[in-house]
Amino acid sequence: MDMQSYTVELLAKIREKGPLIHNITNFVVMNSSANILLALGASPVMAHCLTEMEEMTSLASALVLNIGTLQEDWLQSMICAAQTANSRGIPVILDPVGAGATTFRTEAIHTILQNCSVSVLRGNCSEIFSLGSSSITTRGVDSSLAFSDEMVAAARAMAREKNCIVAISGEEDCVTDGITTFRVGNGQPIMTRVTGIGCGLSAVTAAFCAVAEGRLVEATAAAFGFYGLCADLAVKISDMPGSFQVAFVDALSSTGADDIRRSLKVTEV
Amino acid sequence: MDMQSYTVELLAKIREKGPLIHNITNFVVMNSSANILLALGASPVMAHCLTEMEEMTSLASALVLNIGTLQEDWLQSMICAAQTANSRGIPVILDPVGAGATTFRTEAIHTILQNCSVSVLRGNCSEIFSLGSSSITTRGVDSSLAFSDEMVAAARAMAREKNCIVAISGEEDCVTDGITTFRVGNGQPIMTRVTGIGCGLSAVTAAFCAVAEGRLVEATAAAFGFYGLCADLAVKISDMPGSFQVAFVDALSSTGADDIRRSLKVTEV
Amino acid sequence: MDMQSYTVELLAKIREKGPLIHNITNFVVMNSSANILLALGASPVMAHCLTEMEEMTSLASALVLNIGTLQEDWLQSMICAAQTANSRGIPVILDPVGAGATTFRTEAIHTILQNCSVSVLRGNCSEIFSLGSSSITTRGVDSSLAFSDEMVAAARAMAREKNCIVAISGEEDCVTDGITTFRVGNGQPIMTRVTGIGCGLSAVTAAFCAVAEGRLVEATAAAFGFYGLCADLAVKISDMPGSFQVAFVDALSSTGADDIRRSLKVTEV
Repeated sequence: MDMQSYTVELLAKIREKGPLIHNITNFVVMNSSANILLALGASPVMAHCLTEMEEMTSLASALVLNIGTLQEDWLQSMICAAQTANSRGIPVILDPVGAGATTFRTEAIHTILQNCSVSVLRGNCSEIFSLGSSSITTRGVDSSLAFSDEMVAAARAMAREKNCIVAISGEEDCVTDGITTFRVGNGQPIMTRVTGIGCGLSAVTAAFCAVAEGRLVEATAAAFGFYGLCADLAVKISDMPGSFQVAFVDALSSTGADDIRRSLKVTEV
Repeated sequence: MDMQSYTVELLAKIREKGPLIHNITNFVVMNSSANILLALGASPVMAHCLTEMEEMTSLASALVLNIGTLQEDWLQSMICAAQTANSRGIPVILDPVGAGATTFRTEAIHTILQNCSVSVLRGNCSEIFSLGSSSITTRGVDSSLAFSDEMVAAARAMAREKNCIVAISGEEDCVTDGITTFRVGNGQPIMTRVTGIGCGLSAVTAAFCAVAEGRLVEATAAAFGFYGLCADLAVKISDMPGSFQVAFVDALSSTGADDIRRSLKVTEV
Repeated sequence: MDMQSYTVELLAKIREKGPLIHNITNFVVMNSSANILLALGASPVMAHCLTEMEEMTSLASALVLNIGTLQEDWLQSMICAAQTANSRGIPVILDPVGAGATTFRTEAIHTILQNCSVSVLRGNCSEIFSLGSSSITTRGVDSSLAFSDEMVAAARAMAREKNCIVAISGEEDCVTDGITTFRVGNGQPIMTRVTGIGCGLSAVTAAFCAVAEGRLVEATAAAFGFYGLCADLAVKISDMPGSFQVAFVDALSSTGADDIRRSLKVTEV
């Protein structure tokens, strides 16, 4: 399909409808994720109290779960929210921040995956592959996150094993549902020097999926391409982390159809 | 009264005295509210642990309660802090973020209002009117928040019912204690595209009330006018959300008597 | 020793190694501390759940404890993390935000100091001296934080009493282990107008200590000098709080050996 045109179409829908995105995310990025969603044209809500989970998720068009500063009671809320999302058919984006670093985080992700249906699992290479069974070969998958045939094969195997879209951020990104796979060439190294940029991409992926009417692997690839493109444009304004962050938020609101048609680098592989 | 001169007077007092504002607020805006208060010239403290509530609120000149990411134990702390504020005669500003969206939030606000005396209830149109009894007619109150005679009548009825100042943010703002009512024409649409701008106004209202020596309806209207004026000046620097936010914080520190005398739009209606 | 050269050396090591800094810090500054560490070249992780404390701290090269929005369960996590750090010989930086303001905060710091070995206690004058026994004379120590012989004497006495480095932020900073004492002349008044700048210095001190191989008093003084120097350079870009903060984060990433050799003001007294 024509990914430029589809990205333009989804972006227009986000800006027109302002879909409500429910985020149960970490303390570090709550502010930046909210601003990223607002700049994009979506409507963020951050809420984590179990008492209001079912009601809050029911209002939303997509749900983001992010375990960056997880504690036990929040995990309960995440599962409740995800089950509500599942029963209403709205997409769930899961960001496994720090999976593999501690047992608590790795097990939390497995608990979520066992109790809920996740639409998109978005993280970096080491987070994603820390979650795979031993049957998934990651030999040859460069820990520096370079795109490779081995990474694509492992990502596809992960997607089939977990029954969800796997979306891996790196120098180039890899998005796959196990069948269809996209390579995304937009994005800048400085994105790793600003906190919450990865988490913000999970939120933006949720916004694209919220308006995608079920074509989630294409919507996820479109989100990745658009987000990286905004960074490509922002880094021309500044390549220093403080002012890059400001320019990046500006770019999320100002980047439009012409930019996408000219510079989006999303290709099916 | 001459609202320009009164606003100039209150701003000078804030910058001279640096009143301590105790905030029990949501995770999303803790950082931005603190920076907004510091830029204004006030001194923020964020604290929520019940163990230190009475002691902390006792040090402050005003208290902000904001339910944006509420959980049960925080509600206890809010009530303790508000009762301490009441016993010491310092103003309490209540921001009912998301009231009407979930039962938990709506009930939390009713619990606070039943257990404490609130000076100012500040929110947007839908939040505020979700809290009124059925005897308050909001037919004709535009959900797009346009200022109207119907809105003024409903706001006045709310203020009398809740026995507090009602301050409604919108395209034009409405501030009333049920008797005296102000219309505020400063402010910019882009304020809704940056997270925490509404919550920041609750904090700024607290700072103005902290130095108002009891004239709280005028002080609230002054806070709204000044805050909107800072946005009017900042949007001339940038109309994109990332750089607007930076310019807005700058404007809170640099806007002065001349700007207020020239451009404050606060009128009694 | 030549503090310019030593600061250059530590900065180069941070940028080369990207040491992981584990922060258990307050909600207000989690985002800004993470961005400050990333701009510097270190790798931040924010985590507070007791379940993963031992494992997370074991991955880190330094630990920051900050009680800015403390609650009881976080105190347990702090002690667990600090004991883990102690057993592995990695430095612990303790930021006693608001010590002296409430009993809860003052006692929390005493509890930490009694149960763990702290490398550096970093705060402002009133916070630090609120923690001293009555045998430490602070008469003549200006609450406006001016550097003086009396402050140096009190700081040295504190360092010996608490058996740690005492690092006091003020108009000029004072860093001492009770024997060796440094005076730091870099820094700008506007740093007090942006939230999280003090907390960010605790994080930066952790990064310098992480690569210092045991020379912690010199590393702490180097961190203070470098941090103040970044503010000296940033304030030339803007002296308003919103844009100063952006310029300051930029300066943390761009300030280098030449700037340090030209303008670092760290002297042994």
